[in-house]
Amino acid sequence: MTLSGPLLGRVETQRVVLFTRDDPLVLESGGTIGPVEVAYETYGELAPDGGNAVFICHALTGDAHAAGHHGDPERRGWWDNLIGPGRPLDTDRLFVICPNLLGGCRGTTGPSSPDPDSPDGRAYGLRFPHFTIRDLVTVHRGLLAHLGIERLHGAIGGSLGGMQVLQWALDAPEQVERAVLVCASARLNAQNIGFTAVARTAIMRDPGFQDGDYVGSGRGPDHGMAVARMMAHLTYVSVEALALKFDRERRRGQQARQTFDIDFQVESYLDHQGRAFLERFDALSYLYLTRPMDYFEPFAEPGVDLGRVAAAGTRFLLLSFDTDWRFGSEHSAYIQQHLAAGALDSEHREIRSPWGHDSFLLDVPEYHAAVAEFLA
Amino acid sequence: MTLSGPLLGRVETQRVVLFTRDDPLVLESGGTIGPVEVAYETYGELAPDGGNAVFICHALTGDAHAAGHHGDPERRGWWDNLIGPGRPLDTDRLFVICPNLLGGCRGTTGPSSPDPDSPDGRAYGLRFPHFTIRDLVTVHRGLLAHLGIERLHGAIGGSLGGMQVLQWALDAPEQVERAVLVCASARLNAQNIGFTAVARTAIMRDPGFQDGDYVGSGRGPDHGMAVARMMAHLTYVSVEALALKFDRERRRGQQARQTFDIDFQVESYLDHQGRAFLERFDALSYLYLTRPMDYFEPFAEPGVDLGRVAAAGTRFLLLSFDTDWRFGSEHSAYIQQHLAAGALDSEHREIRSPWGHDSFLLDVPEYHAAVAEFLA
Repeated sequence: MTLSGPLLGRVETQRVVLFTRDDPLVLESGGTIGPVEVAYETYGELAPDGGNAVFICHALTGDAHAAGHHGDPERRGWWDNLIGPGRPLDTDRLFVICPNLLGGCRGTTGPSSPDPDSPDGRAYGLRFPHFTIRDLVTVHRGLLAHLGIERLHGAIGGSLGGMQVLQWALDAPEQVERAVLVCASARLNAQNIGFTAVARTAIMRDPGFQDGDYVGSGRGPDHGMAVARMMAHLTYVSVEALALKFDRERRRGQQARQTFDIDFQVESYLDHQGRAFLERFDALSYLYLTRPMDYFEPFAEPGVDLGRVAAAGTRFLLLSFDTDWRFGSEHSAYIQQHLAAGALDSEHREIRSPWGHDSFLLDVPEYHAAVAEFLA
Repeated sequence: MTLSGPLLGRVETQRVVLFTRDDPLVLESGGTIGPVEVAYETYGELAPDGGNAVFICHALTGDAHAAGHHGDPERRGWWDNLIGPGRPLDTDRLFVICPNLLGGCRGTTGPSSPDPDSPDGRAYGLRFPHFTIRDLVTVHRGLLAHLGIERLHGAIGGSLGGMQVLQWALDAPEQVERAVLVCASARLNAQNIGFTAVARTAIMRDPGFQDGDYVGSGRGPDHGMAVARMMAHLTYVSVEALALKFDRERRRGQQARQTFDIDFQVESYLDHQGRAFLERFDALSYLYLTRPMDYFEPFAEPGVDLGRVAAAGTRFLLLSFDTDWRFGSEHSAYIQQHLAAGALDSEHREIRSPWGHDSFLLDVPEYHAAVAEFLA
């Protein structure tokens, strides 16, 4: 099986209003949001019987633009290496759907969208209701209904994306034939929660945050966001990857004097990561999309019904990476243990990759082959 | 060998001016600092022949107050479990010395001290010269001379403290009979450098930092300092330790609604760590004491002379902890490899402890026994 092929060409982001003010999205908490507009992209053609759809759930800072380009062939979607003709998500055979998440900032309604209850069109800010992973899936299911698809050939996601896939498969297994969870977690540990807590603290205590009402004010929590991203990025890459890429190399030469300025290459890299993030992501979305991960613990829910999942025949592939220390193999093993206890069809494979948690975005051959085989 | 005993009672911090404006400390860079006042404490009695002195080099956020108390028996020194009659640093036999580091903020001259060149007594701020681990040792050696001691029975330090001990033993081995390096490093990796870079970014980009001239202004980089400390603290404890202590316990009860407020116990703990740090530590000292660690790579120096160390007969004990992921056993192994290549008397022991890097501050019996045996 060949896993490479031509890259996708130009694609367009589409938008649809799935919930309105009069017929709003009802959240797990009982709160409501309306309207909810969803930005999404699709690649490939839907089969006449609708049986070839694969749904992508993106991770924390992803968006609807998973593959192809929007006019500049150099600026390509975030999962471009996985999606296309002859690739693991083979668009010659599959119809691939990728929406931006509820709460996001890349076309789908989120906390920086205008609050319909505000007379002057002010953004929601912290008045946006809290939502859960299940609420993200509710919006996905709305999009699926809009597209006229009843059952997915597969759903796939990495990190937070894998959490959505798991929740979907547990809540509506008859909609998901195959579930691919890449470096996902169903139970963040105290260290995981700690890291997102520090990131949120950096953002919320930044004076530019202005209690969440920074949208349109001309300033935002840029320092806090950059620091949050720099720290988070350190946890997404392995100590091996950083050593391979940067070791102790210095921009000013190895003999230059000690300085507080950016000197080591790894500092320059992190600084760039922090600054670039400000261009493409919103602080409120960062808060709203990280927090549900802390609370996510689906196997501890009283109503979880693995018998229904077994009856539906949903198959699970869990992939983790050996150098991932943010959501390492123990997280996937925990999920697989629970699925196996329910006699579900599941497999966990640990993939060797030096790149840590970020591996799910990279072209790691063993990983891509496993996805291709499972979706074939 | 018993390793416990009565705790030390009341102790006093002493102060001495080791360098003056006319006879300043000359730094490795050629820069000078004068006056340099040093705060230090001693425990036990110096033997008539001066042969029983053990010197403690403290870590990043330590101070001179290593043992005993200053009036409130509940508020004890940071290494109180290690120092005292019958303890590993046995004050019935040993004379223990612990100074606050150059660049610190707990009695020894540092960047928040008044700049003698300022007509209005303004603090140095970022005008304080950069210094190296070797410069820290130069001040230690000045204190030793002041105390009339020629040769140390031992020098001991954890983390940054161990770096000083190593530098001292390499530069003046005839002064150091026994060197104890606990979870030290002689070559920070890119991840290590990355974490301190994020911490410094959090501090220096905080508007309260005011380019380092916040001392006396009534405000400082408190948000940045708290975030830096919260993140650093996460790297000092192991994932196991956090799981043991906090798991997913919530202050509001396990069924309470999702919130951005502090909810999980680990969040509460980190928030406390961040706030408490503001009470006892200075942001400029944090910058000036972290940066020399990034540059520290003594075995790469052209002038390193292991033959001289061998001739002096200095013995090395290197201890690391199996769950320490900040300066793990590979850092100690790297040091030991270089010492062994110079045919020096060295031993590396990895101690089992669930508490991560912080283990060097804790009463881990195998660790304390190893120190006691080596210094006996």
